[in-house]
Amino acid sequence: MTEMRTLKVALLGCGNVGAQVARILIEDADALAARTGARLQLSGIAVRNVNADREVELPQELFTTDAETLVKDADLVIELMGGIEPARTLILSALRNGACVVTGNKALLAQDGPTLYEEADKAGVQLSYEAAVAGAIPILRPIRDSLSGDRITRVLGIVNGTTNFILDQMDTTGAQFADALAEAQRLGYAEADPTADVEGHDAAAKAAILASLSFHTRFGLENVHCEGITSVTASDIAAAKDAGFVIKLLAIAEKLVDEEGREGVSVRVHPTLLPREHPLAAVHGAFNAVFIEAENAGELMFYGQGAGGTPTASAVLGDLVSAARRLVLGGPGRTETTTGHVPALPIDAATTSYYIGLDVADQPGVLAKIAQLFAEHGVSIEIMRQTIHRDAESNVESAELRIVTHRASEAALAATVEAVKGLDVINSVTSVLRVEGV
Amino acid sequence: MTEMRTLKVALLGCGNVGAQVARILIEDADALAARTGARLQLSGIAVRNVNADREVELPQELFTTDAETLVKDADLVIELMGGIEPARTLILSALRNGACVVTGNKALLAQDGPTLYEEADKAGVQLSYEAAVAGAIPILRPIRDSLSGDRITRVLGIVNGTTNFILDQMDTTGAQFADALAEAQRLGYAEADPTADVEGHDAAAKAAILASLSFHTRFGLENVHCEGITSVTASDIAAAKDAGFVIKLLAIAEKLVDEEGREGVSVRVHPTLLPREHPLAAVHGAFNAVFIEAENAGELMFYGQGAGGTPTASAVLGDLVSAARRLVLGGPGRTETTTGHVPALPIDAATTSYYIGLDVADQPGVLAKIAQLFAEHGVSIEIMRQTIHRDAESNVESAELRIVTHRASEAALAATVEAVKGLDVINSVTSVLRVEGV
Repeated sequence: MTEMRTLKVALLGCGNVGAQVARILIEDADALAARTGARLQLSGIAVRNVNADREVELPQELFTTDAETLVKDADLVIELMGGIEPARTLILSALRNGACVVTGNKALLAQDGPTLYEEADKAGVQLSYEAAVAGAIPILRPIRDSLSGDRITRVLGIVNGTTNFILDQMDTTGAQFADALAEAQRLGYAEADPTADVEGHDAAAKAAILASLSFHTRFGLENVHCEGITSVTASDIAAAKDAGFVIKLLAIAEKLVDEEGREGVSVRVHPTLLPREHPLAAVHGAFNAVFIEAENAGELMFYGQGAGGTPTASAVLGDLVSAARRLVLGGPGRTETTTGHVPALPIDAATTSYYIGLDVADQPGVLAKIAQLFAEHGVSIEIMRQTIHRDAESNVESAELRIVTHRASEAALAATVEAVKGLDVINSVTSVLRVEGV
Repeated sequence: MTEMRTLKVALLGCGNVGAQVARILIEDADALAARTGARLQLSGIAVRNVNADREVELPQELFTTDAETLVKDADLVIELMGGIEPARTLILSALRNGACVVTGNKALLAQDGPTLYEEADKAGVQLSYEAAVAGAIPILRPIRDSLSGDRITRVLGIVNGTTNFILDQMDTTGAQFADALAEAQRLGYAEADPTADVEGHDAAAKAAILASLSFHTRFGLENVHCEGITSVTASDIAAAKDAGFVIKLLAIAEKLVDEEGREGVSVRVHPTLLPREHPLAAVHGAFNAVFIEAENAGELMFYGQGAGGTPTASAVLGDLVSAARRLVLGGPGRTETTTGHVPALPIDAATTSYYIGLDVADQPGVLAKIAQLFAEHGVSIEIMRQTIHRDAESNVESAELRIVTHRASEAALAATVEAVKGLDVINSVTSVLRVEGV
């Protein structure tokens, strides 16, 4: 048997995911070597504090605070520090040295991806980041490789487990947002400061990455319209449920033609109604899933664990073995294609169906007035449903009107809602939510 | 702009999938070139009859009956003829010439895969076959690449659309197998001779391919235990439904330890009960899905269209673009790893839970007798449920007993069922079905 080559692996960061990656690199060394054709030797772990408590017991001599030196001597660099700096500088330095880089840093990729991709291109090495989107789920490689002969038309993703857990709790138990958030925090599904999750920022970074790969064009955070779930109420959820829908926070990237006939991609994150029979509606708890529509393949869905140290480590190691095999085989790494050049469309150009809840006066002719107003704004109504409530004590009647529209532009819808508010028969607009999958 | 290289693509076969592949290669030539970095020029289509009617209008001059000559001059060969010969000889000849090969030929791969893989290894070229399993769903590449740093422990696949359609019809409408099959044939989901589908042979070939990739070991058809769905009755389905299960034909590959402590892989295809809340239970109609359990990633599911010309063409073209990009970049192709060396276990060594339906005498002590007998055979009962029916006219009572066991070996279960049949309180064993996902 010929002597196996050894590849030096530098690990930057030793949190939740990093510690598991280190553990597996050590424990599964033989199996990984067999699959790679080279031994993957963990040469060191760069951390801020070498004496910090870790979840996993790891050899103390591996730890160092000198990330720069560690990177210089590595064939493969795994960056799991998070944040922009020093991660960005270290990755660029690794790529320039000809090392392949594996990262899970979605914020950095969404903010400054193009700089990194270009550096990898120049060096002819691989920059992989499967762990950055939807944790353990193999989604970026299938989009990049398996669907490279197809045209993706739309991506709908549940890519944030915290918000999916919260919305699922609200849907199952009828809880208000604040209570469901508290429960998520108690169970460790939400951080003490949940802003990045509940405001949709985490999902927005993932949406930018998904859009870039799906449409062969580089989209950044500035191209993503982002709304979180903090304003979703228990009564929104109940009304949606009653109408046969479930509310999910979706990362959406879809090819659209705007009113001027210009083709572009709308990238956005917002709470969305989905029919209960839609495959994404069955994604419960902290699970993630990405639903893809492609011209030839049709509908595809990828489902699995979107977070957690061990599941995310699986994605990191898949990238690592793939990059290492390429080093063993020889020949340059494969990088992304960005030949699409489709423009990002502003949110106003996006079209979806809408669900609108209205508290209206209970008098004849109200439905006709509202329908007329929608028609004037070019928004076509698919379903209109009125429910009359009578208060047992006061004997006062109130009417609730629920409308689901056909696809309309954000701009047309916004104008319609403004006009509806001005009608004297309207007491209040109780909810406006986008609908997908109908 | 530098001149783009042209790669010659030979297409062998022009059926359902082949015709769509040819159409897309011609219609999407520019987009494919942009993504590949080379023009993919369809140099010819080998068919038996150049004048046959085709679903898609294609340039007549592309057609030839001389597959050998076409293959000799190609950089990339797409084999979609099906069957063993001449497909096998043509693929081997293409690989020896240094061409990359894309095929969807599951029968050939399951029967003679090792010969093909070795030839590709020797030539340092790519042999890809994503289309061979689960049509449009990217499943082989995620297993091979994305999960290459993980250990897969179990694969459960709905990989045959015909049988899934039939079982779904039976579940939804209460139809008998024969009627559901007739409906599937009427709608084009089943062939006039449905044997390969309903007897499980198609699923068995896919099970062998999935097992080989998942466990880094070459498994052939001879390692797959195969049972079809022809003996599944409407009353099996009804009883399963009543107990909260759905019946699916699953292709299963899982790592097990047999009674002698020997680790191995059980590869099998059989009708299987799944709890209705299992993600695979929601896979309806002719759709396919593959559910994977891995040590680190946890549970993953891949869902999409498993057949049809255009969806399957998407998988073929994904492989083609990937192989062509590698030719453009230089460096050898990537081949499978077969370093696992785990033995295939015979069906007797497989362990699952079982569902057993019994028609029993309605007298005291029956349950105790049966429970005693199961215990003696080392099969542990999880659920035991008795239903008494009284015939309104005759006033005769009969009792139905349904048992779900804990995991037990096939051998232990078979012995138990034999023994149960000998009990005087048993009128008949109405069904024995395996259960997964509990």
